Amino acid sequence: MTSPTPALPVVEPLEQTLRAELQRIIDTKTKPPGSLGRLEGLARQMGMIQRTTRPSIERPVMIVFAGDHGIAHEGVSPYPQAVTAQMVANFLAGGAAINALSRVAGLTLEIVNAGVATPMPPSDLLVDIPVARGTRNFAHEPAMTHEEAWAALHAGAERVRVHAALGTNVIGFGEMGIANTSAAACIMSRLGGVPIADCVGRGTGLDDTGLAKKRDILAAALAAHPDTGTAIDVLATFGGFEIAMMAGAFMAAAEARMTILVDGFIATSALLVARALAPAVVDYCVFAHASNEAGHRRMLEQFEAEPLLTLDLRLGEGTGAALALPLLRAAVAFVNEMASFESAGVANRGA
Amino acid sequence: MTSPTPALPVVEPLEQTLRAELQRIIDTKTKPPGSLGRLEGLARQMGMIQRTTRPSIERPVMIVFAGDHGIAHEGVSPYPQAVTAQMVANFLAGGAAINALSRVAGLTLEIVNAGVATPMPPSDLLVDIPVARGTRNFAHEPAMTHEEAWAALHAGAERVRVHAALGTNVIGFGEMGIANTSAAACIMSRLGGVPIADCVGRGTGLDDTGLAKKRDILAAALAAHPDTGTAIDVLATFGGFEIAMMAGAFMAAAEARMTILVDGFIATSALLVARALAPAVVDYCVFAHASNEAGHRRMLEQFEAEPLLTLDLRLGEGTGAALALPLLRAAVAFVNEMASFESAGVANRGA
Repeated sequence: MTSPTPALPVVEPLEQTLRAELQRIIDTKTKPPGSLGRLEGLARQMGMIQRTTRPSIERPVMIVFAGDHGIAHEGVSPYPQAVTAQMVANFLAGGAAINALSRVAGLTLEIVNAGVATPMPPSDLLVDIPVARGTRNFAHEPAMTHEEAWAALHAGAERVRVHAALGTNVIGFGEMGIANTSAAACIMSRLGGVPIADCVGRGTGLDDTGLAKKRDILAAALAAHPDTGTAIDVLATFGGFEIAMMAGAFMAAAEARMTILVDGFIATSALLVARALAPAVVDYCVFAHASNEAGHRRMLEQFEAEPLLTLDLRLGEGTGAALALPLLRAAVAFVNEMASFESAGVANRGA
Repeated sequence: MTSPTPALPVVEPLEQTLRAELQRIIDTKTKPPGSLGRLEGLARQMGMIQRTTRPSIERPVMIVFAGDHGIAHEGVSPYPQAVTAQMVANFLAGGAAINALSRVAGLTLEIVNAGVATPMPPSDLLVDIPVARGTRNFAHEPAMTHEEAWAALHAGAERVRVHAALGTNVIGFGEMGIANTSAAACIMSRLGGVPIADCVGRGTGLDDTGLAKKRDILAAALAAHPDTGTAIDVLATFGGFEIAMMAGAFMAAAEARMTILVDGFIATSALLVARALAPAVVDYCVFAHASNEAGHRRMLEQFEAEPLLTLDLRLGEGTGAALALPLLRAAVAFVNEMASFESAGVANRGA
């Protein structure tokens, strides 16, 4: 295995020093204790991540990583591979769901070509750093080399560092890549120890026949590639360049002490890789939503995560992460702006 | 029974003409069909309410109705009655949760004194129109007269008409009133035909003893007041002025074809009253969240409602409704801004 150069991000466990002080502040706000539910935990987590009792949201960013997958040639998606590039063009033109949802959420959007099969047109929105023109078909051979996997991890980390330098302290990641639910399902099966049948779903909309075929193809691929037990092997064998970059991005975001919005099935598979390389990354994560892709709930269990939103989404692109940002804004607002019982002259519970 | 003067709002069932056209527009957006989940239904509902294929959010408003309850003297809340007035003062000073959450959501906030036990100081935020200085104690006598109930319904409707004239097309309602979960539980039991034990919860934080006592007091009160089968009787017997105004506000908002954000346990009890008077009001409602107050889930079943958010909130004030507004913004954004497969040159599903 090639050693990484430069070093991967170093992720420290969340510092606990401020936990009690944050909880005290939250509990003295003019409301019954605990009555703001999940917002209270968000405020506490963001305060601990930012090491302040007055957490804030600065220059929130959404990075969408796009890449193509050799496994698409096995017919595991109802959409042709060309749709990856077409959707990237749609992102660049402003016409996709993540454009609309990023705009209303106040997220700065960046599209990264991590490895789309065809060249992309220049655009202010685009960071054009493909590792290769799509992965190889893991039904027959590993999707990428170890060198390519490391290169993608580092490139993803580097994108986050650019935003950290600009002041970003909240970030979400999305993805586009026809057939990437197949890659994610294999990563989940191998890193999570979950039977492949429980990891495979309909993706963008397979029918029953297509679903059964996808399941068979992925089961055969897993059987063909021995389990070496290392996350880099799993990533290189089954991963996509967008997944690998996102894994590196998760690590760099945690290193930079950002609050990280975790999107759906693909993003969570990238987090499985990141966690294998840097376990503390999870401390910085907010699990934004439970998607309708079969397997996502099961993958969330790997993190003992209770996602914020359940809106029956199954689109990817970072849409679930974008929809959760307003909840972070609300958490920050209540902890910074609400009066305490004492300062407001409100009687606390007596009877 | 005194006849209402002027007439209550007239609520027409939601016009269905645009349903198919809205669905077609939603389905041709560059995403797998249905993949934006609940956002798609929101966009369709808002389009139908506004009778347009390009729904919008104009001047969104949050009205918080506050009132006191005679039943508070039975010790059904761990907080003293004085907290209602103190919290209204906190709203007016900008220090409560609903101030912070309205601000980040971009909601114009208005506080209505519907019937607080003590006079309120003048404030730009306050609409000071109390029906009386709190209701009577329904453990011993009806909470209000029919005249008071009608007056409150009309006053609530009138507040909404003021905002309709200013262009508001999305509205949410919140409430403050120590002991109002007791009023709401009795309304739910009687109008919903639900045993009182299933309607009673801990409110702002009763312990087991307090909960048992509350249950006994409310069961006795229900037994003492005969069921006449009319919603106005139920409202007058058990209601609060804030609940009655909110019921009128629901009706006026539907009449004005606003999209209505329904908050938690108290707000949903007011909607039970509004529905009894104008069944079509529900067509205009978005059920914002499932609160942690026992009974709210059961009350939502009365509407076959699947709320958007489950964030373990149990605060009231309209906080859950405020948190749902960004989802409406997202729904409007995707339906107005996303490209279609055709316009974006993206291949639709084939294989």
